[in-house]
Amino acid sequence: MTRTQVGIVGAGPAGLMLSHLLSLNGIGSVVVDCRTRVEIENTVRAGILEADSARLLVDTGVSDRVLRDGHPHEGIDLRFGGESHRIDFRALVGESVWLYPQTDVFVDLANARARDGGDVRFGVSDTSVDINGPAIRFTDSDGVHQEVRCDLLVGADGSRSICRAEVPESVRTHSFREYPFAWFGIITEAPRSAPELVYSHSPRGFALISQRTETHQRMYFQCDPETDPAAWSSDRIWEELQARVAGPDGFTLNEGPITEKTVLRFRSFVAEPMRHGNLLLAGDAAHTVPPTGAKGLNLALQDVRVLAEVIERALLKNDSDALDEYGPRALERVWKAQHFSYWMTTMLHALPGATGFDVRRQLGELASVVGSEAGSRYLAEGYTGWPA
Amino acid sequence: MTRTQVGIVGAGPAGLMLSHLLSLNGIGSVVVDCRTRVEIENTVRAGILEADSARLLVDTGVSDRVLRDGHPHEGIDLRFGGESHRIDFRALVGESVWLYPQTDVFVDLANARARDGGDVRFGVSDTSVDINGPAIRFTDSDGVHQEVRCDLLVGADGSRSICRAEVPESVRTHSFREYPFAWFGIITEAPRSAPELVYSHSPRGFALISQRTETHQRMYFQCDPETDPAAWSSDRIWEELQARVAGPDGFTLNEGPITEKTVLRFRSFVAEPMRHGNLLLAGDAAHTVPPTGAKGLNLALQDVRVLAEVIERALLKNDSDALDEYGPRALERVWKAQHFSYWMTTMLHALPGATGFDVRRQLGELASVVGSEAGSRYLAEGYTGWPA
Repeated sequence: MTRTQVGIVGAGPAGLMLSHLLSLNGIGSVVVDCRTRVEIENTVRAGILEADSARLLVDTGVSDRVLRDGHPHEGIDLRFGGESHRIDFRALVGESVWLYPQTDVFVDLANARARDGGDVRFGVSDTSVDINGPAIRFTDSDGVHQEVRCDLLVGADGSRSICRAEVPESVRTHSFREYPFAWFGIITEAPRSAPELVYSHSPRGFALISQRTETHQRMYFQCDPETDPAAWSSDRIWEELQARVAGPDGFTLNEGPITEKTVLRFRSFVAEPMRHGNLLLAGDAAHTVPPTGAKGLNLALQDVRVLAEVIERALLKNDSDALDEYGPRALERVWKAQHFSYWMTTMLHALPGATGFDVRRQLGELASVVGSEAGSRYLAEGYTGWPA
Repeated sequence: MTRTQVGIVGAGPAGLMLSHLLSLNGIGSVVVDCRTRVEIENTVRAGILEADSARLLVDTGVSDRVLRDGHPHEGIDLRFGGESHRIDFRALVGESVWLYPQTDVFVDLANARARDGGDVRFGVSDTSVDINGPAIRFTDSDGVHQEVRCDLLVGADGSRSICRAEVPESVRTHSFREYPFAWFGIITEAPRSAPELVYSHSPRGFALISQRTETHQRMYFQCDPETDPAAWSSDRIWEELQARVAGPDGFTLNEGPITEKTVLRFRSFVAEPMRHGNLLLAGDAAHTVPPTGAKGLNLALQDVRVLAEVIERALLKNDSDALDEYGPRALERVWKAQHFSYWMTTMLHALPGATGFDVRRQLGELASVVGSEAGSRYLAEGYTGWPA
């Protein structure tokens, strides 16, 4: 049996960042995850870090690698009617975002926790939580049964959270929205097709042209959720992607071997309350967003920033009301981000059942947004992240 | 048989304003309408004039009555979660709008046309148009059959336009969107409840608190399209309206006798092209918007401003390409206005079938808009009208 102040289920960016922030204030924590470190490192996730997220990594001493290996993006292209319109974040809001894969954020955090003597148990099994203890029980990677007793229990265990399930149905509200489409994602071995992300509205549906490294690129196109990636040849994929960005300006994608094909389904989801007694939920355990707004990882980091602050007041300053603040403060940003992600998604995708009116209205909206400094800045504020 | 340069079907604001603008350039026109002048004057329509619309009336010599009898509104209130948030047009975009009923715009235009010797035939019947002539045929108010031959034919004859029907199906596209709700509108004899328009989002649905005069006010609340106004007692109406604006700030409506009850159904509609040979469509004949954005009358005036300019070039300067510009130029604004009206409508109404997620997302959007100078300004730009 181990005793700690904060027991954290989930060693993704939310759980590890929380453990790191708490340690800076001398608060002990134990983090457990059923995945091994190698498994998490091999889970490829896109990564756009808001300026505040990058600063959080650097300023709290996790790592400054994002500044060296990440790519600052000072804007995105909104492409419609076959023409690109740049949303210039730097000029509009004085901020940029960072292209830096979520895997690298995880590696930085895992290294920082190891460096600072953090207690992180990867590859555990049979995890269960007792919210009354509170306690986390699991079998460690050596097959030994373990119990971690704690003052506070944090569920940072992703969209299939076992902690979330402990909030009784009578007090919880789950809000969600399904989208009748998915993203077909590829990684290709090819040079960049554009210096920044290109969000493309087209009569054939949405496409996102993203970057990864000098030699590998990530691209997506809207597809039916039932699409079987195996049924799509490379030729067919390139034909579809090229068609979705084609325009009179002659923009074309640099093609190369496709090294990965996946279909990503997504939905909008919010679990409330984010606190139930001594249980607190953070990141994907509490909410998921469609990827269009690039908000998922950033919301998770923002959650734990608030959470670390209220836990510090609760445990170190005996401020018994502090924990009450967590949900309302975090949720204010969560719902703005939910709207932003929904907005980007519905503005850019071909919506099943859409009439000619709906498509022309989308184009009217896109023209309004790029044609207005205020509209462009409103979008840039959401994309780069509202002030904390 | 009468000969004129431009034959105009419809003596509403679009038709009369076009006739007026043409006359300033010495271009002759005849306007016919199946309604009598008294009928049109008694058709009550809301009226929010964009700054440019008010300037058009004043600067082209129609009347300066809007400046004396109209009320400048320098903002609106967006109300949600029981709190009001002012969108300050003056501070955000340096413009205001004018509360000035459409009926008064009509009276000013009809008086100006009479004063300037304009040829306007009210109360005609059996109107038909020949787009090849081109010609308008009708029976005048004295029962005499008449024919007006013209160089150009303009359909400014409202949402049930007979002119629009002359564009062959093979070349036209009609885009539309139905809304699964309507507005229950009342006029009440009571003092103003607020100095400016209040757009209220509430769990019971949308409400709009508008003003008319010192003694009569106009209010609306979202209802089922099948609602029978006769089935609603005054008590029930006031209870519903009060509930939709109630909040911790204690805002309540000044009640009074209800002198009019109507249910307004609405939809979004755009007919393209706006020109077919010598036939040109303007105003409601070419497009209708939901009333939430207060754009209908303003779009009609904007159409004829562009139309008068291209007709002048076509007829006086033999610029045979001028008419080609009309549709594309007018439609650019039309689609921005369609989006704006759709946005205001869907952001503020209770959408049938909406989940808890959808409602919370709406509130997240409203919080984003009022919490951001850029978001508020983007809304203010649309409401006060984009530059011509």
